[in-house]
Amino acid sequence: MTATVKIAIAGLGTVGMGTVELLERHSKLLAARCGRAIEIVAVSARDRSKDRGADISGFDWFDDPVAMARETSADIVVELVGGSEGPARETCEAAIATGKHVVTANKALIALHGTELARAAENAGVALAYEAAVAGGIPVIKALREGLVGNRIERLHGILNGTCNYILTTMRETGRTFEDVLAEAQELGYAEADPSFDVDGVDAAHKLAILTSVAFGTEVDFENVHIEGIRNIAPEDIEYAGEFGYRIKLLGICERTENGVQQRVHPAMVPLGTPLSSVDGVFNAVVTEGDFVGTTVLEGRGAGAGPTASAVVSDIADIAAGRRVPTFGVPAASLTPSASASFEDHVGAYYVRLMVDDQPGVFAEIAAELANHEISIEGVIQRSRSETEAVPVVMTTHETREAAIQEVLAAFARLDAVREQPHMIRIENF
Amino acid sequence: MTATVKIAIAGLGTVGMGTVELLERHSKLLAARCGRAIEIVAVSARDRSKDRGADISGFDWFDDPVAMARETSADIVVELVGGSEGPARETCEAAIATGKHVVTANKALIALHGTELARAAENAGVALAYEAAVAGGIPVIKALREGLVGNRIERLHGILNGTCNYILTTMRETGRTFEDVLAEAQELGYAEADPSFDVDGVDAAHKLAILTSVAFGTEVDFENVHIEGIRNIAPEDIEYAGEFGYRIKLLGICERTENGVQQRVHPAMVPLGTPLSSVDGVFNAVVTEGDFVGTTVLEGRGAGAGPTASAVVSDIADIAAGRRVPTFGVPAASLTPSASASFEDHVGAYYVRLMVDDQPGVFAEIAAELANHEISIEGVIQRSRSETEAVPVVMTTHETREAAIQEVLAAFARLDAVREQPHMIRIENF
Repeated sequence: MTATVKIAIAGLGTVGMGTVELLERHSKLLAARCGRAIEIVAVSARDRSKDRGADISGFDWFDDPVAMARETSADIVVELVGGSEGPARETCEAAIATGKHVVTANKALIALHGTELARAAENAGVALAYEAAVAGGIPVIKALREGLVGNRIERLHGILNGTCNYILTTMRETGRTFEDVLAEAQELGYAEADPSFDVDGVDAAHKLAILTSVAFGTEVDFENVHIEGIRNIAPEDIEYAGEFGYRIKLLGICERTENGVQQRVHPAMVPLGTPLSSVDGVFNAVVTEGDFVGTTVLEGRGAGAGPTASAVVSDIADIAAGRRVPTFGVPAASLTPSASASFEDHVGAYYVRLMVDDQPGVFAEIAAELANHEISIEGVIQRSRSETEAVPVVMTTHETREAAIQEVLAAFARLDAVREQPHMIRIENF
Repeated sequence: MTATVKIAIAGLGTVGMGTVELLERHSKLLAARCGRAIEIVAVSARDRSKDRGADISGFDWFDDPVAMARETSADIVVELVGGSEGPARETCEAAIATGKHVVTANKALIALHGTELARAAENAGVALAYEAAVAGGIPVIKALREGLVGNRIERLHGILNGTCNYILTTMRETGRTFEDVLAEAQELGYAEADPSFDVDGVDAAHKLAILTSVAFGTEVDFENVHIEGIRNIAPEDIEYAGEFGYRIKLLGICERTENGVQQRVHPAMVPLGTPLSSVDGVFNAVVTEGDFVGTTVLEGRGAGAGPTASAVVSDIADIAAGRRVPTFGVPAASLTPSASASFEDHVGAYYVRLMVDDQPGVFAEIAAELANHEISIEGVIQRSRSETEAVPVVMTTHETREAAIQEVLAAFARLDAVREQPHMIRIENF
């Protein structure tokens, strides 16, 4: 057995303490599996005296994670501070600059500065590992970079945010509204006090940008992810989705198109019976399509102390055992610019719900607008009737361009009989 | 970039030629991903002149794979001959003895001789890699050994044989019998002329024995896998399973119990809505339970040229890039004997179908036998009535010991009113 691998951990929140607990509980097992003992030598957090439910007095303490990264004798700095700028970024930069490996769970940091950090790490001859940044309970970075290394990946899509999936699942099961379920999720600790990062799709977009880079060998390109969240999903839409044979999920999707790489995060209807349709609650899942392997589905918990610590430790173990992989699958210097495809050129099927006055000729007006934009209808549900209230006209379309659907939605909104902003959800028949 | 990695391939069937095609089509991509070029230098197969749809004249030809393994200048010998003894085994032994890495898709070989081959390989300082031996389209060996390295695995279960899953799926969808669907599967090439290896559960048991060793760090122990196949599954059972809220799947299961490690392959009812219940057709899936990560589900194609070649190449890429892992997760010398648990001690719920004469007192006799063996009923279906033909009595039990259910089934069979051998299927509420 070669020398002990020394670890410094920046950030002792739930994931940090989960990592401490895992490394201590499984120290013998990990030594047998890695061929080397792994030892925590230093930690850094905001408050030294806080009760964390475990003894950290045996580790060197640093008030400043950046100083720790620079000065520690550790071989690996584990960055669990969070945030794309400030101390988190500086901690990683300082570790790389002083020849230490970096393991991070920080999706924002990798999504925004991944290419640059990867170049710095590869130039310094150290690892920049981030399995925990994307769906901690799913070893998806490893699967893409190593397990599916023999494939050209054509498309990848997944449920990448557990908070949104929990909210959508609960809305479906209870018929309650988004606001109502969100409030409950906040009480239960499944959603943050400021939920925007999750429910507006930003967190999923961070993860998608990272996955895209690994899947396609392109520079990380968060800027060009089209992002929509789940705030506008109504209980009625979930119900109609069921009637048409779909479930509504917040998806992250990246694919190679003839116009370039397309990255998008938005609510989508997925057919019942497909793998993602039954991934419920806080679970995440990723579906990859490779030219030799075909479809592979990976499912697991997306967040939480245990799953994230498991991912952090898998990166530590790889480094300890001397297993190295280029940060995004190919050397950072040879990552290609992502040549982003315009979202207007996206072609797909759509679900549209209009709330209209129930008067003669309304449907003819709607049909005329669809015809004007060369959009053909696949299915229609129009059931309820009312002389006083708006009634829903619900339809699904055949494949059409995103630009056409946006134009027709604007045209619908201008019709006198249409009462609310039209509701639209994309249909993904993968 | 360091020197080219040289490959010798033994066996040029569909997987062998798929591997040739993959290595050639993606040679540039693989060189970028592995940091080294990969080049096939030698091949061996039974018939040199057979038309394989691709040009193999550029490779050194060997009639004898064992001679190739011994004499080739290749760094890695890929064994795709098949079979647990004879040329396949000797090819691997010869490669190891002459200091070459081995990549194999041979589940029978690893299930029966894995521990011994792993010791030889580790003593020789070469890799023995077998990702392709278990569910080619799922990088499950990599996930277990590396991705989930920080976890103690408590249990693993999966659908490990695509032929059985195809037959059971088709039986459910069409209501046809096992024999009928098997015959069709043979015509379509989904099942072998001699289907025993698949339908009697041996193939799944080979894969399970390998997974158990990786999950638990135990010696490969195929001898102690309890094996039952799917020949006795009747269309009625599939229908009743649906009524009780289950699907029937051939499962491989390994778990730590208080009596030791239990390994079993048998048809099982899995609840609708759980991940495996919707894995249909030729797909395989593996569910793992780790103490930190929780439940992880991996799904993909189990066989075929593309998926298996993808797995073979992932092993080649790891070796090319210098990434090494102990064969079964820990050094072969420290694998523990598996301390197999007796199957009689298995505790679970059961489905039982009896075909009985529809006469007064029959159900009382059945209930008395259950009471005698301290087995309690969870649900019963008894609907059809007939004065001339046997009618089904279908029940599910609460948890009981395997020994008790076997005794009560024998007692049922002795009842005058019971016409056929009782039908029993285990229920797995994971």
